[in-house]
Amino acid sequence: MRLSPRLTNLNGGGSDGWEVFYRARQMIAAGQSVIELTIGEHDVRTDPSILGAMDASARGGHTGYASVPGIPALRDAVAARVSAQSGVPTTRDNVLITPGGQAALFMTHHAACAEGARALFIDPYYATYPGTIRSVGAVPVPVAARAENGFLPRPEVIDAAAEGASSLLINSPNNPTGAVYDRATMEGIAAVCRDRDLWLISDEVYDTQVWEGAHLSPRALPGMSERVLVVGSMSKSHAMTGSRIGWIVGPAEAISNLIALSTVTTYGVPGFIQDAALFALGAGLEEQIAAPFRRRRALAREILGRQNTVGLIPSGGAMYLMLDIRATGMNGLAFAFALLEEEGIAVMPGESFGRAAAGHIRVAMTIEDKAFGAALERLCAYTARRAQAA
Amino acid sequence: MRLSPRLTNLNGGGSDGWEVFYRARQMIAAGQSVIELTIGEHDVRTDPSILGAMDASARGGHTGYASVPGIPALRDAVAARVSAQSGVPTTRDNVLITPGGQAALFMTHHAACAEGARALFIDPYYATYPGTIRSVGAVPVPVAARAENGFLPRPEVIDAAAEGASSLLINSPNNPTGAVYDRATMEGIAAVCRDRDLWLISDEVYDTQVWEGAHLSPRALPGMSERVLVVGSMSKSHAMTGSRIGWIVGPAEAISNLIALSTVTTYGVPGFIQDAALFALGAGLEEQIAAPFRRRRALAREILGRQNTVGLIPSGGAMYLMLDIRATGMNGLAFAFALLEEEGIAVMPGESFGRAAAGHIRVAMTIEDKAFGAALERLCAYTARRAQAA
Repeated sequence: MRLSPRLTNLNGGGSDGWEVFYRARQMIAAGQSVIELTIGEHDVRTDPSILGAMDASARGGHTGYASVPGIPALRDAVAARVSAQSGVPTTRDNVLITPGGQAALFMTHHAACAEGARALFIDPYYATYPGTIRSVGAVPVPVAARAENGFLPRPEVIDAAAEGASSLLINSPNNPTGAVYDRATMEGIAAVCRDRDLWLISDEVYDTQVWEGAHLSPRALPGMSERVLVVGSMSKSHAMTGSRIGWIVGPAEAISNLIALSTVTTYGVPGFIQDAALFALGAGLEEQIAAPFRRRRALAREILGRQNTVGLIPSGGAMYLMLDIRATGMNGLAFAFALLEEEGIAVMPGESFGRAAAGHIRVAMTIEDKAFGAALERLCAYTARRAQAA
Repeated sequence: MRLSPRLTNLNGGGSDGWEVFYRARQMIAAGQSVIELTIGEHDVRTDPSILGAMDASARGGHTGYASVPGIPALRDAVAARVSAQSGVPTTRDNVLITPGGQAALFMTHHAACAEGARALFIDPYYATYPGTIRSVGAVPVPVAARAENGFLPRPEVIDAAAEGASSLLINSPNNPTGAVYDRATMEGIAAVCRDRDLWLISDEVYDTQVWEGAHLSPRALPGMSERVLVVGSMSKSHAMTGSRIGWIVGPAEAISNLIALSTVTTYGVPGFIQDAALFALGAGLEEQIAAPFRRRRALAREILGRQNTVGLIPSGGAMYLMLDIRATGMNGLAFAFALLEEEGIAVMPGESFGRAAAGHIRVAMTIEDKAFGAALERLCAYTARRAQAA
């Protein structure tokens, strides 16, 4: 039976570099010792206080259909959070609660892109971006951000790709690079969006993980609140990855239409998870959850500062490091495979995140400090040996 | 800013008859006494034993990303349930866990329908069907099932609408009519699907609520397992409406592609909800949860048997009654509004579920027996007065 091309084309064909990840999982399943630095999953679980709030809500009877746009108290709490952070007046009418940030990525592209529309995104990119764009029948168009520019995108390069496009997707703080877009970059991006009449989909799920500078939402820039759709999530900020809860913030008219889409895609989000999220937003846990990554980034700078074979891309946020291993003469995929087989350390090849990250690897800072430091030291020593042999 | 036509057209324009529902909610909010018989929400909450399983899972650490296709144990349990019920050999490769039956409706249409495809569905229909079809860029084509035929669809009428169509959506046991498709009807539908090379999307979320006859999944008919996508859910069978958990059962190749869609639409379903569902499927609660509706249906037959103004459409399943109020000379919408304003009883007009249910009302059997019986008696008396005055 024939499936819709929108679905069968979703993965775009070709290798995506995730073989290393699956190989690492295989090795672990087979009982081998592997140091796992691949995935953006915290080394802590969701806080018991949040789980307590969820259980209390469920046992209190919040187990029936919840309001599809989100319960009013949670929409208000997200609006207050966004208002406080960005300075943009925001009410519940600007907020849709979604089953996670990924759902928000899907729904914002569904809203912005008609069938066949061109949808821009910055390369390197989070793995699901091209498939998300293809799933709404749009054409993914990568715009390279170069390593030599700290993986910040250049507005003129975006502009050159923007003819006939409907949307641009950005992500700051960035996965996989750790880049935090500065004001000049963000203003340049905003100008392109205004000139080219693009929706700007701003994935801000790492907004509580900023180690240098400050998070700037493009929604706060002049003339932008009418064309920015912010993607938010509790996954990274509150170690609630498995709860699948996030939001879209945008113009009230777009949100009103997106509520209709939420009705037919999932019919909303469990009420007890919304109550847990509402509790979590008021619990002040963000700093505590971000702190291990802040420490490990400092540790990494110290360790990498002692050598000069592995290049550390200056990163300002998020739970990853992007390392340049081109001194070995290897590409990221070959290096990651070799590191896994020879040292038992699993990292993601840059190629998994697009062409612009070729020759790099992404390291998730998601194991405890001492083991993380030791792994980085072994990684540096290994790279040095490979570079000498090259 | 322009939104995609697929989104802005989602609701199709025009009144959908849900004004009665919103008016009832308003009256309740204003403190007025309203007997609520509108929505398919059980008058019991999710069983505490299920909530206990969820809490144990979450506190046990199942709060990180869960496997996107669903945890293997739950996929296996759904496969076993479906195998036992339908006799069709089914493995986890035929099962995708989804965030509710609505997500399964969306995803199956996404899979079956390319942009612009014609997607058939039976009228009367569950309220989200046309919007779900429009949301994937397809064209909803209603096929009327007539009251005089017990709201069973006639295969030749489906066939007459099938030229160039990609899919047919059916729902047995049926919301809103309570019809349970007999074997002859189902075989006729299957023949049309084979002849016309249609995907058959079979919404079976009421499969545990059958009061007469037996539930027959079209996937069990010859040559059909390759073209049937079954939509299942824990909402109705286990009073887990707010947990948003369901599944798609279908050919392995379709499921494999749908896993990619699940990755980009929601990135799976919370692990602790999946653990709760796994517990629930093994807990043997189905009969207990269906029992009140079985009792109330018997009660309704008794009450309605004592008069002959209100016509009861013979129903075999689901938690609703479809009543013919054409003796009043009113349409369903006018009648429902009058019943709400004059008697404080809220029911859904048939027109909310399509043209074929005009002149009818849908009554949800979702309040306790005694109050339900009293409400039906008042409804009959009211209808008799209106009919005499007509």
